[in-house]
Amino acid sequence: MSDQQKYNFGMIGLGTMGRNLLLNIGDHGFAGAGYDKDATKGTLLEEEGKDIKVKGFSDVKEFIASLTTPRAVMMLVPAGKIVDSVIEELLPLLDKGDILIDGGNSHFVDTNRRVDYLENLGYHFFGMGISGGEEGARRGPSIMPGGDKEAYSVMKPILESIAAKVDGAPCVTYIGQGSAGHFVKMVHNGIEYGLMQLISETYEILKTGLKLDDDSIQKLFEKWNEGRLQSFLIDITKDIFKYKAPGTDHLLLDDIKDEARAKGTGKWTSQAAMDLQSPIPTIDTAVAMRDLSKYKALREKAATLYSNAETAKLDVDQDAFLAELEEAFYFAMIITYAQGMQMLSNASVEYNYGLNLSEIAKIWRGGCIIRSAFLNDIYNAYEKDNELAHLLLDESVAKTVNETISGVRSVISTSVSSGIAVPAFAASLSYFDAFRSKRMPSNLIQAQRDFFGAHTYELIGKEGVFHTQWVPKN
Amino acid sequence: MSDQQKYNFGMIGLGTMGRNLLLNIGDHGFAGAGYDKDATKGTLLEEEGKDIKVKGFSDVKEFIASLTTPRAVMMLVPAGKIVDSVIEELLPLLDKGDILIDGGNSHFVDTNRRVDYLENLGYHFFGMGISGGEEGARRGPSIMPGGDKEAYSVMKPILESIAAKVDGAPCVTYIGQGSAGHFVKMVHNGIEYGLMQLISETYEILKTGLKLDDDSIQKLFEKWNEGRLQSFLIDITKDIFKYKAPGTDHLLLDDIKDEARAKGTGKWTSQAAMDLQSPIPTIDTAVAMRDLSKYKALREKAATLYSNAETAKLDVDQDAFLAELEEAFYFAMIITYAQGMQMLSNASVEYNYGLNLSEIAKIWRGGCIIRSAFLNDIYNAYEKDNELAHLLLDESVAKTVNETISGVRSVISTSVSSGIAVPAFAASLSYFDAFRSKRMPSNLIQAQRDFFGAHTYELIGKEGVFHTQWVPKN
Repeated sequence: MSDQQKYNFGMIGLGTMGRNLLLNIGDHGFAGAGYDKDATKGTLLEEEGKDIKVKGFSDVKEFIASLTTPRAVMMLVPAGKIVDSVIEELLPLLDKGDILIDGGNSHFVDTNRRVDYLENLGYHFFGMGISGGEEGARRGPSIMPGGDKEAYSVMKPILESIAAKVDGAPCVTYIGQGSAGHFVKMVHNGIEYGLMQLISETYEILKTGLKLDDDSIQKLFEKWNEGRLQSFLIDITKDIFKYKAPGTDHLLLDDIKDEARAKGTGKWTSQAAMDLQSPIPTIDTAVAMRDLSKYKALREKAATLYSNAETAKLDVDQDAFLAELEEAFYFAMIITYAQGMQMLSNASVEYNYGLNLSEIAKIWRGGCIIRSAFLNDIYNAYEKDNELAHLLLDESVAKTVNETISGVRSVISTSVSSGIAVPAFAASLSYFDAFRSKRMPSNLIQAQRDFFGAHTYELIGKEGVFHTQWVPKN
Repeated sequence: MSDQQKYNFGMIGLGTMGRNLLLNIGDHGFAGAGYDKDATKGTLLEEEGKDIKVKGFSDVKEFIASLTTPRAVMMLVPAGKIVDSVIEELLPLLDKGDILIDGGNSHFVDTNRRVDYLENLGYHFFGMGISGGEEGARRGPSIMPGGDKEAYSVMKPILESIAAKVDGAPCVTYIGQGSAGHFVKMVHNGIEYGLMQLISETYEILKTGLKLDDDSIQKLFEKWNEGRLQSFLIDITKDIFKYKAPGTDHLLLDDIKDEARAKGTGKWTSQAAMDLQSPIPTIDTAVAMRDLSKYKALREKAATLYSNAETAKLDVDQDAFLAELEEAFYFAMIITYAQGMQMLSNASVEYNYGLNLSEIAKIWRGGCIIRSAFLNDIYNAYEKDNELAHLLLDESVAKTVNETISGVRSVISTSVSSGIAVPAFAASLSYFDAFRSKRMPSNLIQAQRDFFGAHTYELIGKEGVFHTQWVPKN
């Protein structure tokens, strides 16, 4: 095979995501090769891409031999041990200087291990977050590549061409060294968990609290999506409220079980945030509520023991309350992003990623699941001051927050009084109220720790640690 | 040395905790030997225990040789690698069948590893949680030993004699195999984090919301401690509100920095709960708020950007509100314990610990930091039905919860409206409101996941998983 006949990019795993990425690559004039043990997948790829240069292989050696060098080979296989076994299968076929890319949602600690292992052997390894689902893969995803900066130049033209575009700018940038790409994608998913939980609580308020019918809920989400709440997740929600169960007059949504599944990236985000001592309570709550939703049998028993008397129709002026709810959502959405950005900021220092928060906000504006009009505000805030210590300290963001605060207080207060669970709204507001506290009541926690465990405390305006015998010894 | 002259129990690490446990052992007629490289610690031990049989060693070989066989040797050293290096130092000196005990707060995963390693070599290894602080160690702690059940019989008489007693029953029981003891102690500490956070939020409501003076706050905690809220943590809080900064007229508490430290057991509890998919949002929030308290510089900046207008004095009838606050605290305290017990229940299945929840509640009633009058109710609930699927499903507990629910709704609603952060109260109530929901709004999360990621969903009353093309493909 002459070099001209060779392929610029290789893909391992030809499920919908892998095929769509290759078709996207082909659309942009590059030649893409795909490998899957299941030969029908390669055939399907070639059918779908009959007008562009893509080819499917079911023989891994032929696949690797078909690529231009230095090779860029992406794995799209389930996170975990499978990634390691695919790496071992490929290694004998690769040359030093080749680039192996893990395009799945691997845990960043695994990615660090693989980077070290492969860099030592002379290969480049990239952890690359890709967001946008199947449709994003096909038409333009948001891409978060992390790894060796030099090696990034090999992939850069391809990635920039296939990524989503916002105002002409591609939604991809070099994220940072080591596991930076997978870390940033993980936090992206954590924010996604938070926003989805907020939407589901909004749904509960609308349906159980205001007793709105599906059509009114649909119209509200549609209206929200035309204003400052514009976002991919609200956008698809308005469509979900249009979709009837086939052959019926009711929403498919009503037939879906209320047990939320998870693939673990939200959990990883919360666990990693705790290791970083970087509080993200809205996301923690979203993880906990997915877990609680699986207690279906227990919940059904509890519903019989605990009166539901409070969950009568909310006694509010509907139009005024809906305006407050819009404010509340905007407020909590801002807080959720702020928690995620702050976690990135902390991780950048702790793990030496060298993250550029304005670039990250920029590439999240298109293609990805958490894209939203507000990401422009985040981008502007960090673009204006890339050393911004916290998103809530940006003056323009502060202005918006101050404008929405009365709405969120009212919505939570009303919901709490009425027995409607609003854990993510409440976690967002509590985070804010604690964050704007010059003085928190945590001095009492320090006093208690010193009392029972002699853990010592610090004093205001005095260096050192101190211990007190709070009561006379027996 | 004849066997009569030998010592029944060995302690490595003669800090205050280690010395106090040995003095406690000596008080009960057993002979205790202690080892510390710092010979002054051993001398101190012998001075403190001049009327009982305790001896300090600074030579590890002499120390080990002084113990009756099979030996029971407890390490009280900082968690982490030090435990492993002490184990390696001891191994050549021990005989097969000897029992090595880790009395510190080691992570349960480390304990599992050490159990496997040492059992393979023919030694017994115990992870033993000890709660009660220095005072508890001296006068009677709550003790949570996990490891080989047969080997437990060697230590049982000593542990039962030194443990706290409630109604004559010792606050120690065999917890379970492997890391069960350390796991249960970890969850104990998680509950401790939750309760401490609730007390600190209560302090904020009383001081910032009601503008009560310190003396009134002190009297309130004192009164609470005489009623159904009676607990060690409220008890010490009432004392903290009595303690003046030396030479001044104000509380020492006022001079203590509001940055809460942590040794990590709360974080471990939250991280482990997420792995178990066992929601404990009140504890998660307590961990997040300790982390947030350390953002002191950011908080000071935020306080200038965000108006504090809402935090005027609460416009409430003070006596009525204080009665509601007592209900709110009781409610949130119950929920915190319920989350912890549920996590133990899930862990028992997942890790095959064989935990007996009524026995655990029983030994937490005395000696430990989370002891409280309500632990008797927990004990009774699981004693009545050791297969109880969730503490909130016990009818007697349900009765109490139903009686306190209006108070907690009112307190949170008022605080939220007034700008006072009540994250742990709100997390407890949201957990409850979601838990008693026959139907949660999580069906929407499943629809969204299927929409953007083809993650599929389940249907009510129909087996299988399903995927929908929610909007026509482009």
